[in-house]
Amino acid sequence: MKYHFIALLTDFGEDDFFVASLKAVIAKINPSARVIDVTHRVPSFGVMAAGFILFSCYRYFPAGTIFLTVVDPGVGSFRRILLAETKDYFFIAPDNGVLSWILEEEDEVRVRELENKKYFLPESSWTFEGRDKMAPAAAWLSKGVSSSEFGPPLSSFKRFKIQKPRLKRKEIIGRVLYTDKFGNLITNISSNMLDPLRTKTGKENFVLYRGKKEIASFKENYSSVKKGEPLFLIGSLGWIEISAREDSASQKLKIKNGDMVKIVVRSRK
Amino acid sequence: MKYHFIALLTDFGEDDFFVASLKAVIAKINPSARVIDVTHRVPSFGVMAAGFILFSCYRYFPAGTIFLTVVDPGVGSFRRILLAETKDYFFIAPDNGVLSWILEEEDEVRVRELENKKYFLPESSWTFEGRDKMAPAAAWLSKGVSSSEFGPPLSSFKRFKIQKPRLKRKEIIGRVLYTDKFGNLITNISSNMLDPLRTKTGKENFVLYRGKKEIASFKENYSSVKKGEPLFLIGSLGWIEISAREDSASQKLKIKNGDMVKIVVRSRK
Amino acid sequence: MKYHFIALLTDFGEDDFFVASLKAVIAKINPSARVIDVTHRVPSFGVMAAGFILFSCYRYFPAGTIFLTVVDPGVGSFRRILLAETKDYFFIAPDNGVLSWILEEEDEVRVRELENKKYFLPESSWTFEGRDKMAPAAAWLSKGVSSSEFGPPLSSFKRFKIQKPRLKRKEIIGRVLYTDKFGNLITNISSNMLDPLRTKTGKENFVLYRGKKEIASFKENYSSVKKGEPLFLIGSLGWIEISAREDSASQKLKIKNGDMVKIVVRSRK
Repeated sequence: MKYHFIALLTDFGEDDFFVASLKAVIAKINPSARVIDVTHRVPSFGVMAAGFILFSCYRYFPAGTIFLTVVDPGVGSFRRILLAETKDYFFIAPDNGVLSWILEEEDEVRVRELENKKYFLPESSWTFEGRDKMAPAAAWLSKGVSSSEFGPPLSSFKRFKIQKPRLKRKEIIGRVLYTDKFGNLITNISSNMLDPLRTKTGKENFVLYRGKKEIASFKENYSSVKKGEPLFLIGSLGWIEISAREDSASQKLKIKNGDMVKIVVRSRK
Repeated sequence: MKYHFIALLTDFGEDDFFVASLKAVIAKINPSARVIDVTHRVPSFGVMAAGFILFSCYRYFPAGTIFLTVVDPGVGSFRRILLAETKDYFFIAPDNGVLSWILEEEDEVRVRELENKKYFLPESSWTFEGRDKMAPAAAWLSKGVSSSEFGPPLSSFKRFKIQKPRLKRKEIIGRVLYTDKFGNLITNISSNMLDPLRTKTGKENFVLYRGKKEIASFKENYSSVKKGEPLFLIGSLGWIEISAREDSASQKLKIKNGDMVKIVVRSRK
Repeated sequence: MKYHFIALLTDFGEDDFFVASLKAVIAKINPSARVIDVTHRVPSFGVMAAGFILFSCYRYFPAGTIFLTVVDPGVGSFRRILLAETKDYFFIAPDNGVLSWILEEEDEVRVRELENKKYFLPESSWTFEGRDKMAPAAAWLSKGVSSSEFGPPLSSFKRFKIQKPRLKRKEIIGRVLYTDKFGNLITNISSNMLDPLRTKTGKENFVLYRGKKEIASFKENYSSVKKGEPLFLIGSLGWIEISAREDSASQKLKIKNGDMVKIVVRSRK
């Protein structure tokens, strides 16, 4: 028995009939599809946040999972709908850059325009293409319809430029990408960027600056500091995260998404 | 293999053990039942909102779906529990009017009182009949127990009067029924009510008034206006919706549920 | 066909990629596992609340259910992870007292340390052991791996002292344990504690005091009082609950978790 997972990521919230409508449409077309909610609480029209959340968990899903991302400020305009296919996964999303992180990460991505009306609901509204076009297409795909059936290949589509951190002598300059529910600040600095800064003695310290102010030291884990104290460490995505033990680094340090931070190496005395 | 979908709609919120208790009871009686959450975030005791949300998505579910609606200000009193059956669906709900929209829409509805203790939990509390009576009944129904087993037919039960919009010469007077998460205002005006107002030339415009103030024009889709600008259009339910592009019409126009609006036809110059 | 239920209880919220990561890991290891959300809205690091919510619904789940509780202020320190096994259920949780209520309630509980790396993800982060250790272990357990495979038995582990109400002559002194979404106040007073206070005539009344102030009378159900009026009754867990009909007792009476209340018997005139 095969399982067909469809993962949903929207900015619909959970108060209305929107998420249920997607799930209903999927269940009607493919009752054996298994739906997993990623989140429906992306800020309204929050394309960048949605893209990052998707990026942060997609690799943990079973091969074959179809990710249906409906964060769609352009609904009802003539923006296209994309069907992207990587080695392991499918992604259905509006052509608004929400897949930029996936496209950056994955080596080989084939992208199509999702446009074959055969796989849409017969009557399609102008305001809810998630329900009328994207969800039914995801359900048909999960039933085994070949991706080539859904529309022609596309060679160009919207992508955001992913800002990379810079390595300057003994400094790494990066940015905060995302603030989670606990107030942890996830930066765009990959943990292995620290390696070239390490000394042969292994006796170096890393410290984090915001502007000219030193705000945290590098630790292996939360228990290396006292309750409420800030630190930075290798987060669960392999990236540098700024945290405070059992507290909100975001509130404590007044740092927000987009803010620049700097990691500096310092010899231990 | 058959799938048995049970859709849940409550005002329980998601903080407590209430929703999980319903799902647990269902899983214990019929582990193969598949539960879909409609929403659990109906305002406490919000019978009207719950009824509208149910109405707005039920038709998208697979035939055979059992809708379990637990918005129940009268729990623990002697209000009855209903089991309603339409051509395609089952509805279990307190007898408090929450099914009014469904009863209005569906041609043939058989309604029973859900009262056979055989399909309730052995020990039933006074304060959580959703868990102790309604959820187990839904689970047994999903296992194939005949609806006639659950209790006797009822000929009268609580129904709210659904307010219909009025057509007066060249005006349609309706009301705002529901405000969604994006601030879209769903009215009770069906899009086909515009048809008799259309002229032979097709050169008419529709404009929307609140009181004596013109507040929006009719457009085909969001992209016909600038960001933040209000418009009204045919919403995803086939009803007139008042929106603002990538913005909240509700906040911008200060209109709320129950407010009266008027659509007027005007010849294009 | 067997079903393997895994119930999730966390303080992750639903905004981020955390809950989806757990579900993804489970689906990848055991695609036939069926996940039920208890709640993800426990206050951050709210070990006591999580324990009570778990206690309030676990007995309704099908035998064999695995409860995965990730409320874990000590993540990344060296606190252990527990695998507890009762007659009917499995519980995976950090060793921080969150299982205290279960351990109090169940007669025979075997507890192990969850430590066999074979059932963890190959690369484990310091900050997300829910995803990297607990979720994969739950998934392997649901696939039929014997509990003894996961680690050695433990004879000591963290438990909170559960405060019991006191019976003094004609009074019961207890505490508010939990406030639900509707503002109902669940106390630690079991309904059968009222029995020794009942008189032969059955003509007694029970009244509830906070400090020196009488605040509510005992009723069988909500409909015995007017809208908005406070009462106390036997709640859905078999414990005394303080409520207000279609209103919030918590707001009306300004009582909160931990507050002491007293039930006094009084002869009916």
